[in-house]
Amino acid sequence: METRSVTDTREFRPEKMAKVNLFETPRMFCDVYCLEPGQEQRPHAHAGADKIYYVIEGEGLFGIGGEEKPLGAGMAVLAPAGVDHGVRNASEARLRLLVFMAPNPNA
Amino acid sequence: METRSVTDTREFRPEKMAKVNLFETPRMFCDVYCLEPGQEQRPHAHAGADKIYYVIEGEGLFGIGGEEKPLGAGMAVLAPAGVDHGVRNASEARLRLLVFMAPNPNA
Repeated sequence: METRSVTDTREFRPEKMAKVNLFETPRMFCDVYCLEPGQEQRPHAHAGADKIYYVIEGEGLFGIGGEEKPLGAGMAVLAPAGVDHGVRNASEARLRLLVFMAPNPNA
Repeated sequence: METRSVTDTREFRPEKMAKVNLFETPRMFCDVYCLEPGQEQRPHAHAGADKIYYVIEGEGLFGIGGEEKPLGAGMAVLAPAGVDHGVRNASEARLRLLVFMAPNPNA
């Protein structure tokens, strides 16, 4: 059985946001993103794939389709296919996100 | 921006496990499953779709591909396409799961 501890997935890098893959199939992937204060995933879009962000800990400033909103632990947001999306850690604390994407653009 | 509070998604039903949809697209869905003690999602399989369970709170007894394992809050598990999977709340406390499936078998 393929299990992962999301709680223990904490890989922070001083130079940029860290992406840690948990699961990957031809149909989707699931990552944990770890952002130090000030780090970000720049706005971008995927033509045919949807992304969901779930905030595990901390607070992220999410920009999706031109709208910006801070979301804290326990919140989830959808970045639909083709829509610009990004996230910035504008807080003073570390930010960890559970991220799902389907289909898998790397497959 | 389509946001959802996973923390506040708590719908328990005395008769059976409750599934609350958060997001749905042609490519995937994201639900919260709420299981009272004793409730379960019976083992089943999806031919061409992968499922991920993430334990938000409580402890679930997961059965995947004939293997059984208890997983607590902060753990995630993959149920790959075609593999039998199910979950039972064998504990004394409520269980909530974040569930992702891709592609969306209902679309």
